[in-house]
Amino acid sequence: MKLDVGCTIELSALWPTPAVLMLRPRSGESQWVLSERYTFEPEVPMSEYTDGYGNLCQRVVVPVSASGPVTVQVEATVDTADEVDVDVTMPRTPIELVPDWVLQFLLPSRYCPSDLIGLVAADIAADALPGYAQAEAVRAWIQREVTYEYGTSTVSTSALETYETRTGVCRDFAHLGIALCRSLDIPARMVVGYLHGLDPMDQHAWFEAYLGGRWFTFDATQAVPRGNRVAIAYGRDAADVAFITQFGPLELRRMDVFVRPAAA
Amino acid sequence: MKLDVGCTIELSALWPTPAVLMLRPRSGESQWVLSERYTFEPEVPMSEYTDGYGNLCQRVVVPVSASGPVTVQVEATVDTADEVDVDVTMPRTPIELVPDWVLQFLLPSRYCPSDLIGLVAADIAADALPGYAQAEAVRAWIQREVTYEYGTSTVSTSALETYETRTGVCRDFAHLGIALCRSLDIPARMVVGYLHGLDPMDQHAWFEAYLGGRWFTFDATQAVPRGNRVAIAYGRDAADVAFITQFGPLELRRMDVFVRPAAA
Amino acid sequence: MKLDVGCTIELSALWPTPAVLMLRPRSGESQWVLSERYTFEPEVPMSEYTDGYGNLCQRVVVPVSASGPVTVQVEATVDTADEVDVDVTMPRTPIELVPDWVLQFLLPSRYCPSDLIGLVAADIAADALPGYAQAEAVRAWIQREVTYEYGTSTVSTSALETYETRTGVCRDFAHLGIALCRSLDIPARMVVGYLHGLDPMDQHAWFEAYLGGRWFTFDATQAVPRGNRVAIAYGRDAADVAFITQFGPLELRRMDVFVRPAAA
Amino acid sequence: MKLDVGCTIELSALWPTPAVLMLRPRSGESQWVLSERYTFEPEVPMSEYTDGYGNLCQRVVVPVSASGPVTVQVEATVDTADEVDVDVTMPRTPIELVPDWVLQFLLPSRYCPSDLIGLVAADIAADALPGYAQAEAVRAWIQREVTYEYGTSTVSTSALETYETRTGVCRDFAHLGIALCRSLDIPARMVVGYLHGLDPMDQHAWFEAYLGGRWFTFDATQAVPRGNRVAIAYGRDAADVAFITQFGPLELRRMDVFVRPAAA
Repeated sequence: MKLDVGCTIELSALWPTPAVLMLRPRSGESQWVLSERYTFEPEVPMSEYTDGYGNLCQRVVVPVSASGPVTVQVEATVDTADEVDVDVTMPRTPIELVPDWVLQFLLPSRYCPSDLIGLVAADIAADALPGYAQAEAVRAWIQREVTYEYGTSTVSTSALETYETRTGVCRDFAHLGIALCRSLDIPARMVVGYLHGLDPMDQHAWFEAYLGGRWFTFDATQAVPRGNRVAIAYGRDAADVAFITQFGPLELRRMDVFVRPAAA
Repeated sequence: MKLDVGCTIELSALWPTPAVLMLRPRSGESQWVLSERYTFEPEVPMSEYTDGYGNLCQRVVVPVSASGPVTVQVEATVDTADEVDVDVTMPRTPIELVPDWVLQFLLPSRYCPSDLIGLVAADIAADALPGYAQAEAVRAWIQREVTYEYGTSTVSTSALETYETRTGVCRDFAHLGIALCRSLDIPARMVVGYLHGLDPMDQHAWFEAYLGGRWFTFDATQAVPRGNRVAIAYGRDAADVAFITQFGPLELRRMDVFVRPAAA
Repeated sequence: MKLDVGCTIELSALWPTPAVLMLRPRSGESQWVLSERYTFEPEVPMSEYTDGYGNLCQRVVVPVSASGPVTVQVEATVDTADEVDVDVTMPRTPIELVPDWVLQFLLPSRYCPSDLIGLVAADIAADALPGYAQAEAVRAWIQREVTYEYGTSTVSTSALETYETRTGVCRDFAHLGIALCRSLDIPARMVVGYLHGLDPMDQHAWFEAYLGGRWFTFDATQAVPRGNRVAIAYGRDAADVAFITQFGPLELRRMDVFVRPAAA
Repeated sequence: MKLDVGCTIELSALWPTPAVLMLRPRSGESQWVLSERYTFEPEVPMSEYTDGYGNLCQRVVVPVSASGPVTVQVEATVDTADEVDVDVTMPRTPIELVPDWVLQFLLPSRYCPSDLIGLVAADIAADALPGYAQAEAVRAWIQREVTYEYGTSTVSTSALETYETRTGVCRDFAHLGIALCRSLDIPARMVVGYLHGLDPMDQHAWFEAYLGGRWFTFDATQAVPRGNRVAIAYGRDAADVAFITQFGPLELRRMDVFVRPAAA
């Protein structure tokens, strides 16, 4: 399905504040950006670079605006797959065959301390064959055991804490899934983006596992993961994929997200 | 000035033919893509990657279409600088200080055999100080001595031939400028893109020279180079920046380009 | 001074265990590898790649060895600077001028949660001018206030814990320095390598801060940081620069490091 | 077989002359550098970077030496495969499955104008199945039809000229093989390096073709290509892999190459 996706962000700065935004979806294997619009008001010079994960990053100095908040609007029409790919028989890629650049997604990272959670994953996925089935066992376990609840976690919450409290939001679910997969020697990465049908609508986070030479989508917030996703950024965990990184006191006054079927 | 730019391409394939398109301008230091639309009809799977020069490349297998030609339409609204930067006093960057990745733009390349044209450049720029003034001397010489004329060169024409025939089109002008600059130890690269006010309107090509730590725009087709340019792709010469690279017999049946001030 | 540096590692595997080694110093701006020797016994296929930080990584499957431990020996003769560069007047690079690829060294990372330590740094460097003087104030404070002591920290210890316990080893000193610098908006990165004169001899860790367009060396374990350093790997923190990353139970039975003036 | 390989280069400069050297073999899939020594006399600052093809490049300003020529000595002990891999049944990789970064090796390049030589290749490989058999047909044809002869070609000679004159040296043989393979839609790249048993001993050049997801070695200078090769650099053609690129008048006074079985 083609989706119209986008967000509006309002920022307020006390003084000119450098920031890096990550708001621009890229065309890739599983999504194609048909059209896009990026508005920053008031107009200021911006530049763009590609980070080490291939994400498009927009650099800007957020100005002090006398006439109300600074507004960033990004909209895109993206062709997406209606279903996520599922292949329960896909085996784990032996580590010696994991491509060089994918190796980093096996290591512990800030919010996914996979080195500290090893026995848990072995237990959860004890009955699953090495590979997709393990990652799915992890995902299903999280979906079953962890309660989705706002206000119980913060931007500092790690997968270990989520495992202990059994509560969190989509990024916590993803972190836990990533940490557990990595401890099973399955490369896993964080994805942030848009998901059609999310309620309430917001930016979403899920994870991908590398199996049999490609990445598969996993989403522990849903009983059955749906398609119609638009990835904006990939990384080892939330530390790599913040939609805004600010270097100074920047107030986020509003963030509205929309995802809807594209106009014909 | 904000510009609406774009092109429509019609292709006809005898059988499904892989191709790489380079049609998508990127936001960068001197241009900011405000909005963009990319349509490929009939719809087929596409993917996108970034090449070694940072250009966005779209991969596709052009289908055989029973219902008329395959159509690619790319449109963008881009904020551009009204003037090109000029700094006649900017000195040549000593080669030992040229950044690693810029060194490649000092070497001869397919259409810019700078190793074969050395004495010419020394002569043309004899009275100029090393640096911007040399590149400008080269540019002005080409603008004065080479006649812009369609049909006198082909896609195989090198800078050496252009120097000899003293005739060519924008890409030949750029190739000659690049070859001459490189022979003066000034890194130079090819740019293809859009230029406001071009008549007749078409894709355009010009060159950039690396001086004092940054790239400057040079255009030997104009008495005084104008701004309002939208770069689509950078490379060592035309071999790196073809808007379409086809792997099979693909007929280009139409290519329309437009550049106009953006609607308010 | 030219240094002969190297290490011998003995590993023991219960079954064939994939691992990534990071043991090979690269020639760079401040060091030049004159000669090098890399021995892995028994012989097995190895491959090498360059990670996202430019480090050389050797991939191998560590075999089960019936005839004693697996031995890795790496030796190099490296030309090094006798002094570290010092420039107390070097100002902080404004964030908007920090190169794209350096921005990542401003962000919190696993062992350097700079977002949680902000006020501390402001206090420590209160009297210093923004830039080198701040980083030096941080370094001197750590050197004065933190006690170098084995056994008080683990591989999981973060800069925050080191700040609280005021004790640790070289990697903890470096992590704290990095976290504090980042919280002052100074890009900082971890370096592991060899240092001449270390006693007892071992691999060493220190940090670098990006100031005025280049990296400066800081070492909080020394009253006056000395030169004659050989960097092996760079990263955001220890998570990126482990000399061995193992995917399975691999016992490190011995690690001997040597650094001495090169034979004439 | 383990090989000791190396070369000694003597240079003479009229004034300090920047140069880029490409003399350092890297460990990779088919070779492992066990030890290495790099000497530049008199000693000058050098730095090293990795180019877009993964080659190690050494930057230096060659000094004017009062006490005789500047000498560069590079020696390495490298573990190499005794045979080149052969698989006559390996099919051509369909272009739509060629990895992004390999696509560039399908394009014409300076010395390999594959766009101008298309019908020739179709003819030569008319009886071969698409894939390895075609590349081998090309290789065998060159080996049979082109005469190895010094002095009949220059550094400017292209594959087209070699095809016409039917004479050349190893780099010409490689260029012709590459151009012919590319015109058959087989990605092909140039390799320069060492070959055991070459007589007279010198740097050598050959080519590789990308088939079935990996690179295969082809050498048109030999009736049956032998193994025991040490690759130093890869590129599209000789323009990318010069062992020295000089920016000024640098006289190469001597170049001695040796390749011999490693001392036990």
